[in-house]
Amino acid sequence: HLRKIVNKTHAADLSDVFPYLTVRQQHKLFELIDDVEKKGILFSELDEATFLAFVEQMNVDDIVPVFEAMPSDDVADLLGQLRDEKSDAILKKMKREGQEEVENLLKYGDDTAGGIMVPDFIALREDATAGEAIKMFQKDYKDVEMPFYLYVVDEYGKLVGVSSLRQLVVVSPDTPLKAFMSTDVFSVRTDTDQEEVAKLVARYDILAVPVVDDTNTLMGIITVDDVIDIIKEEATEDILKMAGVGTEFIESKSILKNTRIRMPWLLASCFGGLAATFIIGEFEESLKQVSALAAFIPVIMGMGGNIGTQSSTIVVRGISTGFLDVREIWSVVFKELSIGLLLGLVYGTLIGVVAQFRFSGPKLALAVGSAVICSMSVAALVGSLVPMVFARMNVDPAVATGPFVTTSIDIIAVFFYFRIASILLGL
Amino acid sequence: HLRKIVNKTHAADLSDVFPYLTVRQQHKLFELIDDVEKKGILFSELDEATFLAFVEQMNVDDIVPVFEAMPSDDVADLLGQLRDEKSDAILKKMKREGQEEVENLLKYGDDTAGGIMVPDFIALREDATAGEAIKMFQKDYKDVEMPFYLYVVDEYGKLVGVSSLRQLVVVSPDTPLKAFMSTDVFSVRTDTDQEEVAKLVARYDILAVPVVDDTNTLMGIITVDDVIDIIKEEATEDILKMAGVGTEFIESKSILKNTRIRMPWLLASCFGGLAATFIIGEFEESLKQVSALAAFIPVIMGMGGNIGTQSSTIVVRGISTGFLDVREIWSVVFKELSIGLLLGLVYGTLIGVVAQFRFSGPKLALAVGSAVICSMSVAALVGSLVPMVFARMNVDPAVATGPFVTTSIDIIAVFFYFRIASILLGL
Ligand SMILES: [Mg+2]
Ligand SMILES: [Mg+2]
Ligand SMILES: [Mg+2]
Ligand SMILES: [Mg+2]
Ligand SMILES: [Mg+2]
Ligand SMILES: [Mg+2]
Ligand SMILES: [Mg+2]
Ligand SMILES: [Mg+2]
Ligand SMILES: [Mg+2]
Ligand SMILES: [Mg+2]
Ligand SMILES: [Mg+2]
Ligand SMILES: [Mg+2]
Ligand SMILES: [Mg+2]
Repeated sequence: HLRKIVNKTHAADLSDVFPYLTVRQQHKLFELIDDVEKKGILFSELDEATFLAFVEQMNVDDIVPVFEAMPSDDVADLLGQLRDEKSDAILKKMKREGQEEVENLLKYGDDTAGGIMVPDFIALREDATAGEAIKMFQKDYKDVEMPFYLYVVDEYGKLVGVSSLRQLVVVSPDTPLKAFMSTDVFSVRTDTDQEEVAKLVARYDILAVPVVDDTNTLMGIITVDDVIDIIKEEATEDILKMAGVGTEFIESKSILKNTRIRMPWLLASCFGGLAATFIIGEFEESLKQVSALAAFIPVIMGMGGNIGTQSSTIVVRGISTGFLDVREIWSVVFKELSIGLLLGLVYGTLIGVVAQFRFSGPKLALAVGSAVICSMSVAALVGSLVPMVFARMNVDPAVATGPFVTTSIDIIAVFFYFRIASILLGL
Repeated sequence: HLRKIVNKTHAADLSDVFPYLTVRQQHKLFELIDDVEKKGILFSELDEATFLAFVEQMNVDDIVPVFEAMPSDDVADLLGQLRDEKSDAILKKMKREGQEEVENLLKYGDDTAGGIMVPDFIALREDATAGEAIKMFQKDYKDVEMPFYLYVVDEYGKLVGVSSLRQLVVVSPDTPLKAFMSTDVFSVRTDTDQEEVAKLVARYDILAVPVVDDTNTLMGIITVDDVIDIIKEEATEDILKMAGVGTEFIESKSILKNTRIRMPWLLASCFGGLAATFIIGEFEESLKQVSALAAFIPVIMGMGGNIGTQSSTIVVRGISTGFLDVREIWSVVFKELSIGLLLGLVYGTLIGVVAQFRFSGPKLALAVGSAVICSMSVAALVGSLVPMVFARMNVDPAVATGPFVTTSIDIIAVFFYFRIASILLGL
């Protein structure tokens, strides 16, 4: 009875309960699954920690058949997570064909088109007919992941066109492929970054992209389901980098591991904060005379920090999504600077008025107001300029944006504030 | 010659040059496009501002044929951007069928399955045969956006199964659909949130989801290309909300509009900053005695702010991607608090040592160190608790996380610092 329920449940849903079971229960559940392909999907849906803990307890001989039933891109991903000895042992026992496919994939970088493509695609010569193509579908291509596109290659295996199963059933069976195939076929190279692949798929609304080597020979395809994973992964990467918490989701890791990953990013803000300490230390005399000066440090830093985060977030996300063009550095930065100045005027006035009301010193109020204007415009400038420049130099702007921008803005804001105040108050 | 180039270029690429052309050039380019469907794709690829400016100059009679050649979900999207009079005028002139489809879509919320589905799907009764189904493909369904799945409905139009074009060509032509269709068909309701739809597609790796009303009658389908747009849109929304810059990408808007959108979010941090001013004002006497106290405000605020951003970013993105379960509030918050405490101990010691070295007052150093520990652990607590609680109450955690969390952490950090210092230093 339990077996029935398990086999009616989608593997993605089984993977959700898995982490809550003991290893013993996990193995019982796993054995209840009849379909070996389903076991494979379960493997790829598990989070890394759960997968490793589970597979550690399995015999290589039990793992091999599951891996052989999986698409080779997913096998390559999982092998990459295992210890080297274990993954070598598994690879050695796999059937030759699967083994070669996986080894080929492992050659390419993890984040490149070569590393995520599957070598199972449908390719025919241009003089094959629609009827012959349909026969191929019926016999030879039952295992293909995405059986919607049919790629057309020349005698050397070079990609020349694309057609679809749908076109095949619409034309008469004796029409040759070259008569109705489309020759405008988008393709990527094995070394193309996965982010570029995702942009292409999103842009042209296609369901799979063919991957070619540098001689235009068809090597594999990337399917839209994997593109969706890339898009989510890349957005997560941007978000986490901007906050300074690494590049991958770490919540499943232990407290100590978490602490270790987050520590270095905080170092930047620690040094920045201490730099501000030394700057303020220089103005100890001014502070002794007008101790109210200290009261405005938080609001001046906060306003600068927040508008700086706004600017850099807009730039980082704008570049990732293609809304912003990296070459337009100056127009973007000029716009941000203008916005910073405008918002600085609004909030500088407001905060200046409050300063006058609370401490009734017009010079102090003027100094606080000007410092807000100054810190907000500089923050908008730095917050937009830094990621634009990084992107221009092909450094990931998300990394630049997190703690570094925030910290430099803190230092700049404090420095300007005390400089302006000591001049205006004649300290 | 130019016409040739234009017609060989993909509409998505034409949409990239469009914003750089004058309205006159835009119209010239537009008229060079021969294929009315391509004109439609161009329309949907333009950013909102460019589309509005361009279409404002067009006659309703020239717009209607383009809209009629577009999928109705895209038409509904564009009509939503136009002035009411204009969109009414266009709708009135559209052919009855298209008009009804679009009006039906406009009934549903913009972010629901109903608002993004297309009513063009392939549905047959369960006793139809594979051969009949293929004939339908050849004759009736040339306009369908995603001709890969074939939905099976009962005599009342209720969804009972799904099959694919691929299965049709594999089985013998006289097999009835019910003999090989799959009855495990994922579907969503018209009022399902688009984010749920995207999760379903990403989870089960499907190319389209059928949308049913509350009587399980098939109303439309959502295709994977639109799901990709949703995933990007939702990630952008999270990123922008966390930074307090609205919910949609605003970079294409004018400086003034940008300023207006970003203003209210800064108000939170302005009030928060001013609250800190008043708190510090209360400790004016302590500051007069130990003016070095002021020098550590930035580093204490900065450390709290940065670890708080780390915690809330992990929680917000973790909830969106499903890595974190909203029901596990306490285990998540406890983990973050532990990490905050650990990191607080490390950095509190470091900063305390620097304080001792710079101002050589052991009590001051102790106060600064304890304040760092305190502000970092409270920040990790608040940064994780607030978005978890919001998510639990079905309020978008991304909104909660931006300026509000940052600002409360600023206030709390400053308050604890001065409380601890005045106790330890006996002020
Ligand atoms: Mg990968
Ligand atoms: Mg698209
Ligand atoms: Mg795959
Ligand atoms: Mg996959
Ligand atoms: Mg990236
Ligand atoms: Mg990347
Ligand atoms: Mg929409
Ligand atoms: Mg998936
Ligand atoms: Mg669509
Ligand atoms: Mg679309
Ligand atoms: Mg959301
Ligand atoms: Mg939403
Ligand atoms: Mg801050």
